[in-house]
Amino acid sequence: MASDDITPWLPPEDLDRVRRQVPMLYVDIVPVRVDAQGQVQQVGLLLRVTGDKLTRALVSGRVLYHETLRQALTRHLEKDLGALCLPRIPLSPQPFTVGEYFPTPGAGFHDPRQHAVSLAYVIPVDGDCQPQQDTLEVGWFTPNEALLPEVQAELVDGHGTLLRQALGHVGRLQ
Amino acid sequence: MASDDITPWLPPEDLDRVRRQVPMLYVDIVPVRVDAQGQVQQVGLLLRVTGDKLTRALVSGRVLYHETLRQALTRHLEKDLGALCLPRIPLSPQPFTVGEYFPTPGAGFHDPRQHAVSLAYVIPVDGDCQPQQDTLEVGWFTPNEALLPEVQAELVDGHGTLLRQALGHVGRLQ
Amino acid sequence: MASDDITPWLPPEDLDRVRRQVPMLYVDIVPVRVDAQGQVQQVGLLLRVTGDKLTRALVSGRVLYHETLRQALTRHLEKDLGALCLPRIPLSPQPFTVGEYFPTPGAGFHDPRQHAVSLAYVIPVDGDCQPQQDTLEVGWFTPNEALLPEVQAELVDGHGTLLRQALGHVGRLQ
Amino acid sequence: MASDDITPWLPPEDLDRVRRQVPMLYVDIVPVRVDAQGQVQQVGLLLRVTGDKLTRALVSGRVLYHETLRQALTRHLEKDLGALCLPRIPLSPQPFTVGEYFPTPGAGFHDPRQHAVSLAYVIPVDGDCQPQQDTLEVGWFTPNEALLPEVQAELVDGHGTLLRQALGHVGRLQ
Repeated sequence: MASDDITPWLPPEDLDRVRRQVPMLYVDIVPVRVDAQGQVQQVGLLLRVTGDKLTRALVSGRVLYHETLRQALTRHLEKDLGALCLPRIPLSPQPFTVGEYFPTPGAGFHDPRQHAVSLAYVIPVDGDCQPQQDTLEVGWFTPNEALLPEVQAELVDGHGTLLRQALGHVGRLQ
Repeated sequence: MASDDITPWLPPEDLDRVRRQVPMLYVDIVPVRVDAQGQVQQVGLLLRVTGDKLTRALVSGRVLYHETLRQALTRHLEKDLGALCLPRIPLSPQPFTVGEYFPTPGAGFHDPRQHAVSLAYVIPVDGDCQPQQDTLEVGWFTPNEALLPEVQAELVDGHGTLLRQALGHVGRLQ
Repeated sequence: MASDDITPWLPPEDLDRVRRQVPMLYVDIVPVRVDAQGQVQQVGLLLRVTGDKLTRALVSGRVLYHETLRQALTRHLEKDLGALCLPRIPLSPQPFTVGEYFPTPGAGFHDPRQHAVSLAYVIPVDGDCQPQQDTLEVGWFTPNEALLPEVQAELVDGHGTLLRQALGHVGRLQ
Repeated sequence: MASDDITPWLPPEDLDRVRRQVPMLYVDIVPVRVDAQGQVQQVGLLLRVTGDKLTRALVSGRVLYHETLRQALTRHLEKDLGALCLPRIPLSPQPFTVGEYFPTPGAGFHDPRQHAVSLAYVIPVDGDCQPQQDTLEVGWFTPNEALLPEVQAELVDGHGTLLRQALGHVGRLQ
């Protein structure tokens, strides 16, 4: 990915400053299980403790300096679902939508840390998915279950909308 | 697919008449080999004898009465590449483009038999591909090889353009 | 559109027979009003009497023999919204989704008359829209209003889902 | 766009540093003239002097901190084509492709200044387009003219490929 003199990781104080200077590029991923005809059967949501409450989230993360989008997609899927998740990275770089997160509430989604722009993809995982790091559980939901108000209410800002856009895109929004 | 009283196949004389009455719905498929990061490495083209010359074509065929698009994609891939080709049918029904073929030359592509409208998809095949029926060979070409004038010249009407649109869509058009 | 010897219109008995022989190609259109930045402000729905109840529908109709998709989109918008609706026909033939309607309930949407496959587009109209023929009213709804259960309940089969997919595609699904 | 305490513009030394720390978010725009049926008739290319030679380029520029994508699209079109160019900003934030530019040659396109990721859109302009600042001319080319080797050879890195992807997307790649 990067040659020796390129350091994609930033010290926290540099990252804090950059986050107030330019939009940060992210990828948002809806991990799915599909049947043999490509029909989405389940979506995967990460269960975490945020503050004192349970939240659910899609796979999401920053694109690093000198990292390709395909590398970023693979890295974040393996970071959150484990090295054996076996993702099928999309053939086309075209996202199904683009999410915009702003530090001040109003237009778009809200992220108090930064202005982030996120390219969103639906990605099938064929392998074994295990919660990593601070994730309590990788939960699998049918499209109908994922649309239940109680599930939607647990999703972090923006991810409920992205999930419904993703289900619309794959023809599973009832 | 169809219940007992539904006959998706039409006698030739009925099909001939229908072809002059309504647009016929087709799927056009660019079969590809991809690497672990989803990057297209090769495209598959069918070599056939048409009249007295060799031609190359994408996988293509009609959607039958009461057949879903996903069933039609699987059926035509297995018909042309064999039952072991193991296609990864797309998650979304959204085609990367729509081709229009008219019986009179002019706008769009030309098909003397009919007015056809074709939904076009790029579909990875992971399995063993063998030529079927009247196909002499399933040839695999890198994107650069597929764009060579001599390969483009052998493609049947419309398929050269569709192939270049497909390579553009997956980010492999140089 | 068609040269003299091509008759795109079919006698009712021919159309009835063809509808049981091959999938019929349709376009489904979500007419919208947009602001100067391309943000969808309102969606247009056609109010009709179907049997003894009020129903709402998107603009929808068949693609005729030898008609281009662009011609079909313009014709159906003018047929349902009037000749002064001033549509901005999309630059790309790529639909945001494809709807599948089957004569027997089950997979996809239901249309007792036929197997139809519909290419769906969101199309801005800048001009004056007036109800035509059997339409009582062209109603304009903000995205939030269009998503209200009472509006969704009035939509004919499939159009509620298509409308939500369209709002997801243009980033207006909350 | 931004509240008083947000400064989207960066001093040159800050921008230089940030460009080596994170991917920079850009928009690439193919300005087009379309006919009443949405068919692309001409594409607009900016003629400039770069070093000692003439180059042609698409409309392109950075997304600023706290700026929406729609604002960035409008700002860059007006910056390069003038305030009277009257763009029709797309309804959907979905780009037709995503370009990746790296400071070291190899994968993707090359930009010695930075790692940039660019969301690409085809945007019709209905108004009067005039060259601005360092642009000598806004040239309009039919799809066939834009594909001529001599025009492609004048395009800056990546823009030739993007232009062909755009023409493929709108169905005008022969």
